[in-house]
Amino acid sequence: MSPHKTLKIDKLPTIRRMPNYLQILRGLAARGEEFVSSSYLADRMNIDAILVRKDLELTGISGTPRVGFHVRDLIASIEKLLGWGKTLDACLVGAGQLGAALLGHRDLAKHGVRIVAAFDTNPEKAGTSIHGVTVFPFARIQELLKRLTILLAIVCVPAEVAQGVTDILVDAGIEAIWIFTSVNINVPEHVIMQKEDLLSGLAVLSAQLTRRCPGALPE
Amino acid sequence: MSPHKTLKIDKLPTIRRMPNYLQILRGLAARGEEFVSSSYLADRMNIDAILVRKDLELTGISGTPRVGFHVRDLIASIEKLLGWGKTLDACLVGAGQLGAALLGHRDLAKHGVRIVAAFDTNPEKAGTSIHGVTVFPFARIQELLKRLTILLAIVCVPAEVAQGVTDILVDAGIEAIWIFTSVNINVPEHVIMQKEDLLSGLAVLSAQLTRRCPGALPE
Repeated sequence: MSPHKTLKIDKLPTIRRMPNYLQILRGLAARGEEFVSSSYLADRMNIDAILVRKDLELTGISGTPRVGFHVRDLIASIEKLLGWGKTLDACLVGAGQLGAALLGHRDLAKHGVRIVAAFDTNPEKAGTSIHGVTVFPFARIQELLKRLTILLAIVCVPAEVAQGVTDILVDAGIEAIWIFTSVNINVPEHVIMQKEDLLSGLAVLSAQLTRRCPGALPE
Repeated sequence: MSPHKTLKIDKLPTIRRMPNYLQILRGLAARGEEFVSSSYLADRMNIDAILVRKDLELTGISGTPRVGFHVRDLIASIEKLLGWGKTLDACLVGAGQLGAALLGHRDLAKHGVRIVAAFDTNPEKAGTSIHGVTVFPFARIQELLKRLTILLAIVCVPAEVAQGVTDILVDAGIEAIWIFTSVNINVPEHVIMQKEDLLSGLAVLSAQLTRRCPGALPE
């Protein structure tokens, strides 16, 4: 295990792939498989075996030549690396359609994210409940963040207010922000931010479509 | 411009950052700025200037020492690289909460993605309209894909059926699939697939939280 307290940016693609390794490894464990080869994982992940071996270095688990990696050791090490299997209390800011979709998302609950409160500026939403989570007026966020032990804020607000909402959360002492937006957001260095940007995915898609069939997209 | 027809996997992080460069560059152009330095872009993007210069190599635009990069040339080159500014007809498969959020997403329309039809297996949704897009029964997807010139399918279906739906789309001759799921999905090599995986983002967040405050997450 690396001794670094913060993850280097060049390790982030590896971390992003870890849930997929976990999913494959859990399937193997459920079928009673004890060892797995990097070439098998490469095949299932659609990436190069060299990249698999490099990824798995981060877990600290070494493979044995001609035997492979011990499946249960890998699972335990990845879960430890990701801090999964623990509960992480979160709040949701912005209870629109995307926010509601996240409130109902099974994968979050399954991976320990417990959304304990939602916030919205729409007065008609205050007091209602979405997927069992109460929506509070956004004006109360600082007060409630002080009373509850919330480490993570999941932010789904319009682009125009995304930086302003982020600043309020930072002022309220939030540790981590998971924000769904396409605009640039700045946070101080001590705040962990993960941005999910729909346009990044679209860029990859349309760049590939443009290259593969340049005549196919009408002007 | 690179002569490659398909993008190498090591270029994908660069492509993912391109919409952010565009956003900053358009802001500069609107303010009448003619040139921009890699260090300014690095600052705004929160990445290293060396990485900025490496990213911008993909555009084919070279910077001039002490002057920087020509803003409008960079914008034009990135738009060409991404195939943006053109219209891309798409369909949505799975009109649940996430699907509805995507149907109403301003960023997609703004970047040329025109969702012309939605599909859902729920018979109660058939014939309704979400954000102006008609929902058709999923059973009609092959027939309608043949009649309409749809290159891209945006897929937001439950994990259990994600691979099955993908296979049907591939059989129907779809060029590209943008799928929102956490499970591994396989497509033949000729189909472009971009997967948005909520768990990848969560993995990065919780790995960082675990490292930064190992005692903060309760067991």
